[in-house]
Amino acid sequence: MNKNIYFDNAATTFLDDAVYEAMKPYFEGHFGNPSSIYQYCQTAKQGITEAREQVAAGINASAGEIYFTSGGSESDNWAIIGTAFAKRSKGNHLITTKIEHHAVLHTIEYLEKKHGFTATYLDVDQEGLVNPEDLKKALTPETILVSVMLANNEIGTIQPVADLVQITKEYDPKIYFHTDAVQALGTIPLDVQALGVDLLTITAHKAYGPKGVGALYIKKGVVIDNLIHGGGQEKGKRAGTENVAGIVGFGKAAELFTADVVERNLKIKELRDHLINRATAEIEGIVINGSLEHRLPGNSNFSVKRIEGEALILSLDHYGIAASSGSACTSGSLDPSHVLLAIGLDHGTAHGSLRVSLGKDNTKEEIDFFIDKLILIAQKLRAISPL
Amino acid sequence: MNKNIYFDNAATTFLDDAVYEAMKPYFEGHFGNPSSIYQYCQTAKQGITEAREQVAAGINASAGEIYFTSGGSESDNWAIIGTAFAKRSKGNHLITTKIEHHAVLHTIEYLEKKHGFTATYLDVDQEGLVNPEDLKKALTPETILVSVMLANNEIGTIQPVADLVQITKEYDPKIYFHTDAVQALGTIPLDVQALGVDLLTITAHKAYGPKGVGALYIKKGVVIDNLIHGGGQEKGKRAGTENVAGIVGFGKAAELFTADVVERNLKIKELRDHLINRATAEIEGIVINGSLEHRLPGNSNFSVKRIEGEALILSLDHYGIAASSGSACTSGSLDPSHVLLAIGLDHGTAHGSLRVSLGKDNTKEEIDFFIDKLILIAQKLRAISPL
Repeated sequence: MNKNIYFDNAATTFLDDAVYEAMKPYFEGHFGNPSSIYQYCQTAKQGITEAREQVAAGINASAGEIYFTSGGSESDNWAIIGTAFAKRSKGNHLITTKIEHHAVLHTIEYLEKKHGFTATYLDVDQEGLVNPEDLKKALTPETILVSVMLANNEIGTIQPVADLVQITKEYDPKIYFHTDAVQALGTIPLDVQALGVDLLTITAHKAYGPKGVGALYIKKGVVIDNLIHGGGQEKGKRAGTENVAGIVGFGKAAELFTADVVERNLKIKELRDHLINRATAEIEGIVINGSLEHRLPGNSNFSVKRIEGEALILSLDHYGIAASSGSACTSGSLDPSHVLLAIGLDHGTAHGSLRVSLGKDNTKEEIDFFIDKLILIAQKLRAISPL
Repeated sequence: MNKNIYFDNAATTFLDDAVYEAMKPYFEGHFGNPSSIYQYCQTAKQGITEAREQVAAGINASAGEIYFTSGGSESDNWAIIGTAFAKRSKGNHLITTKIEHHAVLHTIEYLEKKHGFTATYLDVDQEGLVNPEDLKKALTPETILVSVMLANNEIGTIQPVADLVQITKEYDPKIYFHTDAVQALGTIPLDVQALGVDLLTITAHKAYGPKGVGALYIKKGVVIDNLIHGGGQEKGKRAGTENVAGIVGFGKAAELFTADVVERNLKIKELRDHLINRATAEIEGIVINGSLEHRLPGNSNFSVKRIEGEALILSLDHYGIAASSGSACTSGSLDPSHVLLAIGLDHGTAHGSLRVSLGKDNTKEEIDFFIDKLILIAQKLRAISPL
């Protein structure tokens, strides 16, 4: 029996029907360039204005603090490179963690390699949590930016960002704090005021919006260099004709999750807990990675002993089940996950990992079907395993 | 009588129905993340592969030389910043022209102001053409990049890019040559081999494709720094989950113009010539800006003496006619066009300019309606003008 079961919501979610409906007029009649002054284009401009308010409401920001981008990677790059080049005269030291998304890690590595910046990569414990004391020790008079993700894309660990911000600001309020909240958006309530961050990255396609559109929250008063220079769009901070339909879709997606983020994810969390409980009880040699307490509601991540992650994914695929061995952005790579290594897994165990990330339309039946098949697959793969 | 006449195709074109149809499946079932390995996502990956071939065919490149971005501004920034940082050890001098799009000009100004680069901004003649001798004189042993647009977005002037490339490469083959071909794509045949450029910027939404997706052609062997670091997408050169539907749409748009770019634009050029002929014959004090010979088929740009451009646009808008006073990206600005100043217009005349850019669905009837109204508007505005 071959089902279509989608368990890779951390890689991308499907496009919500209501979001798609909201986008359609902007592919049809409302195609005007929002920068133009004639009536024809005012609808496009209004669509963007409304979306900016919807996205702002979704993270408790004001509309003037939302800058639309092409997605999470651009927002991360902008926050980090923009801060680095804007604050170079103050210092050249950046702090992040070993389990960030590559859009953060590779950007900081680039700044080190090519532009003379230095960086500290904080360790995490076996649950994936940063120790606030480690941040305290890492701060120097040269530090200009701290970038710690709100929730990890592989193991779902939610960092104590508000505490980390407080430590940073107590040391020096001029240090900017950035958080990659891509995985958190729509899955836990997000409040930039409560977090106290200066910069926050979000993207639409992890929250039932379209691919190719994201945003950077830039707190009022925070000044960073532009990443994409040119026309006057986004108040002169991000050039380029706006992806109007995409932005409108992002706004609609934000409106939807703002209304039911708690309820939606309570249901998802119950399903996830059922999945974890059955998996750990019924499959020998399976271990859950990450924190059970500080964890995104939809995320589960397992190591299955003596089984290769890729073989697992392909076997599940055979039953029509889509899951992931690591993050989508690195799944072409043969290297074990840097996140799993950072929480202390050895190379072999890290290779045997499985990420099952649930979304709002998944059901208990799907999870039970999955577990039943996983039991069979584990038996079969172990029977032929040389390990 | 109020018509809906769209004469601002240089700002953005409408989305072709066939392009929209090609995109739809990727908003519906094929929502997977193309980086994932399960079957669910292979359709998304195949869509991107096919689009890359279609876009490559549209400019006579090979598919491996096409890197998808979020649009023209990102591609311009990437080409320029990526070259500057990659070739810094060779030199710090950039050459461009005074009539480039702001995505080029502001990027180079930023590199001058913040990163220690120097730049030469070449003059243009009254038709908007660069004098190849001026480029010859501007090249220095420190020069690492020449960026000259293929066709201007305001006055439609087509530069002798192949000649300029030859001059550059004769001086030093290691100097990279970039051209912004955003306005040229789909309006004149484009051939990166014939042009000889190393880097070429294109975007979908000026060629009946969607907004929010563009590409940078990077000639095989050309090495520039990344602008957006992170995941392994676009062969590790441009991170970020792909805007799959947008990319597929760009591919379809490319397929369409590749088939009929000559025929399509022959018709557009005839209409444009009719427009220019009637306007200059029937309206007193109207002057065409730019070159009649080296000009994009759909572009016309007029100065109308003793009339403010904005007043003209709003009066046309009253009749349902969408035209532009400058480029869309600067139409919020009160400064006169830097392009019109560069071709020698005084501030007052530059303020009275009108860009009428035709697309593939415009008709002779629309043009005649427009000219009739323009005659009335000119009379009326002059009657109340203090000038």
